[in-house]
Amino acid sequence: MKHLLSIADLSAAEIINLLDEADRFNDVLGNREIKKLPTLRGKTIFTLFYENSTRTRASFETAGKWMSADVINISASSSSVAKGESLNDTGRTLRAVGADAIIIRHPSSGAAQLLANYVAPNGDGPAVINAGDGAHQHPTQALLDAVTMRQRLGSIDNKKIVIVGDCLHSRVVRSNVDLHTTLGNEVVLVAPPTLLPPGVDTWPVRTTCDFDAEIADADVVMMLRVQQERMHGGFFPSHREYATRYGLSVQRQQAMADHAIVMHPGPMLRGMEINYAVADLPNTAIEQQVTNGVHVRMAVLFSLLAAE
Amino acid sequence: MKHLLSIADLSAAEIINLLDEADRFNDVLGNREIKKLPTLRGKTIFTLFYENSTRTRASFETAGKWMSADVINISASSSSVAKGESLNDTGRTLRAVGADAIIIRHPSSGAAQLLANYVAPNGDGPAVINAGDGAHQHPTQALLDAVTMRQRLGSIDNKKIVIVGDCLHSRVVRSNVDLHTTLGNEVVLVAPPTLLPPGVDTWPVRTTCDFDAEIADADVVMMLRVQQERMHGGFFPSHREYATRYGLSVQRQQAMADHAIVMHPGPMLRGMEINYAVADLPNTAIEQQVTNGVHVRMAVLFSLLAAE
Amino acid sequence: MKHLLSIADLSAAEIINLLDEADRFNDVLGNREIKKLPTLRGKTIFTLFYENSTRTRASFETAGKWMSADVINISASSSSVAKGESLNDTGRTLRAVGADAIIIRHPSSGAAQLLANYVAPNGDGPAVINAGDGAHQHPTQALLDAVTMRQRLGSIDNKKIVIVGDCLHSRVVRSNVDLHTTLGNEVVLVAPPTLLPPGVDTWPVRTTCDFDAEIADADVVMMLRVQQERMHGGFFPSHREYATRYGLSVQRQQAMADHAIVMHPGPMLRGMEINYAVADLPNTAIEQQVTNGVHVRMAVLFSLLAAE
Repeated sequence: MKHLLSIADLSAAEIINLLDEADRFNDVLGNREIKKLPTLRGKTIFTLFYENSTRTRASFETAGKWMSADVINISASSSSVAKGESLNDTGRTLRAVGADAIIIRHPSSGAAQLLANYVAPNGDGPAVINAGDGAHQHPTQALLDAVTMRQRLGSIDNKKIVIVGDCLHSRVVRSNVDLHTTLGNEVVLVAPPTLLPPGVDTWPVRTTCDFDAEIADADVVMMLRVQQERMHGGFFPSHREYATRYGLSVQRQQAMADHAIVMHPGPMLRGMEINYAVADLPNTAIEQQVTNGVHVRMAVLFSLLAAE
Repeated sequence: MKHLLSIADLSAAEIINLLDEADRFNDVLGNREIKKLPTLRGKTIFTLFYENSTRTRASFETAGKWMSADVINISASSSSVAKGESLNDTGRTLRAVGADAIIIRHPSSGAAQLLANYVAPNGDGPAVINAGDGAHQHPTQALLDAVTMRQRLGSIDNKKIVIVGDCLHSRVVRSNVDLHTTLGNEVVLVAPPTLLPPGVDTWPVRTTCDFDAEIADADVVMMLRVQQERMHGGFFPSHREYATRYGLSVQRQQAMADHAIVMHPGPMLRGMEINYAVADLPNTAIEQQVTNGVHVRMAVLFSLLAAE
Repeated sequence: MKHLLSIADLSAAEIINLLDEADRFNDVLGNREIKKLPTLRGKTIFTLFYENSTRTRASFETAGKWMSADVINISASSSSVAKGESLNDTGRTLRAVGADAIIIRHPSSGAAQLLANYVAPNGDGPAVINAGDGAHQHPTQALLDAVTMRQRLGSIDNKKIVIVGDCLHSRVVRSNVDLHTTLGNEVVLVAPPTLLPPGVDTWPVRTTCDFDAEIADADVVMMLRVQQERMHGGFFPSHREYATRYGLSVQRQQAMADHAIVMHPGPMLRGMEINYAVADLPNTAIEQQVTNGVHVRMAVLFSLLAAE
């Protein structure tokens, strides 16, 4: 594995290996007695974010620093991008500065792959890690979701995963669908037809707009963030109707199986896609997802930069 | 001590202990021969700033790094806040990422206390340090002021402290009043009535608009920054009148006792609240305040994170 | 050497010494087997950027971190500058916080010198490094250019250096002219008369607007970034005319001597000042410049902070 661009590039064995590695970091660091490993000392990691993010950037920065890497943040607003520099030249500049890895978030689908082509055309440049590219992929999110599912459900095969909400704009959906297709789980997308991605009928998933019918036998209910900035127009009369038809209410939460869990990639809009109280109930795994995010990113960085 | 939210939460003994600790860091690091301690190696500190700041953020970051902590900066403009995430969820995300401490600056009074309630409801989450919340508190500022006073005046009891200017919008005033009330010093607020806080008559301070009458026996003259962005309207005819009545002129500086000192929390507006030349005279302690700021913040971080 | 403010302050011996030092860092770190030196452990470096930059800030931050310094970034937009603080007081604040070095980028010519006067009036404050001040100087750029020339050409005397484009707004030009004047190289500026700096007739350079006549015997062709934000008005009918007359086309590149090299300080505007393909040909040294940038900045930081 040279880069991490898309979950679709990973075999089941590679996925399971990363989950195992994340669990190992969780064992070592989770109790907080050890929080600093020398593993990546002398490695230089750039975060190159063309979109805002708290949790993803902070999570990668934490992962890198806990392994003693130097982590340097570049945000598009303060970068040469404003002067017209291309992604190609920005990437090659970071390579020339000495990047061992570039973690990119970009509004355009495919940007991470492009960057990898630019900086490592012969497989010898820095590793590129996709931290979210448009509506395409967010592979570390799907991996941290999977780590969390396995921890909570005991295993990660033969599960039914119900993903609810704005699937159209969501890279989280695509990475999760790829991951669970590879591992052989069932994925159901619950969304109004206008918020389903084009071509979804060719995906190995079932789609529906009847949330209630999917709850009882779900192992995981994964709520998506409503990307409100893109919800203007469309068929929704109001936020209230969205919350009513696609929000996770107390009643729906109570209809879930005892062992089933609620997930959300964050940031949450309480009252919109998830009820205020539901977000804090014991069967939600939302904070555990965040914690696993650091360990998954450590696993990815370790695999790409140290396990040569 | 679990958090540092308000000076009002501290006993005299706790205050003195932090001042002593800051002096110890000053002894160790002040001569610059040693500048790196392993004390907080493996600790992860987030600065979460919803308002701009050079000196406070840089001071905390320096303090953390000099004790070998990992310091990760989050600014509101590049955070999930823009996507509608609540303070509660942002705080819990940082806790889940692995924060040992969250240093928060926020425009709303009470935000630091709220954050502490959210992230450590049972006293077991990360430490929260208030780096300024609205017009409420800025406890490390009052502590660094006190360290500086004690260094310059030889002791910090039975002093007369005159605080001048925009008391209405100032969290520095409130933290200083709490600290000096606890230590038994006299505080006089000099301000036009329109720039005194509501309810000031219940505070253990004297108020006046006659600056000149208070100068001769003052041990400390503390000038406040004019928060110009909020000075539109009110009774002031002009900046010149403010400078004349409430500015520290050369004449007023010369009327001070020989041992007395001038302080300012910064950033200064020379020519407005303080004369250009006065800011650089030997009896000002402004840069010493900044230096002590790093040592006080080391003391606070040490007390909260290492002295368990 | 206390500060690095302008190439004009350096003797030939000092320049050569910095180039040698950069080459030594290149030898140690260039193969990437070692990437972390303890040299500046315990030193605190502030980057104080009043203008955006990817490459310069990232390059200095990388240089500092590879020598184990603490590097703290201050950007003007999130600083006290917005509250009206002067450069003097900002600088003195950073000194009081404990800065060993302040790396400043500022839109005004002379800002770095001013800052040095403020923070080290008696030569005892932090080192100031000019990372670009207005149209005045960008000394580390000229040094990294010179390192690259010497590596590629084998020596750095008796060379003909042709600098092409917007010389009016370019601090890169001024620093390069100073450096090559000191080392005894020939510098030719190719630009339309409207993009030559005032007073250029007193500089020890030749100026022309006939690019083609200068190419055959040039050792170095250095293309400047077109500062498009300032190109409104003037005599140019169009970007196309600029590209035609002052751009580095394939034909011009082919007219260069075999040993000659193409340089660009970045960020490049491909298609404007340089042909898309030309930027990637073997005789360009653009990425090597970036790599040398880190090593030159290590050399400068080492000279100012460690070699006492």
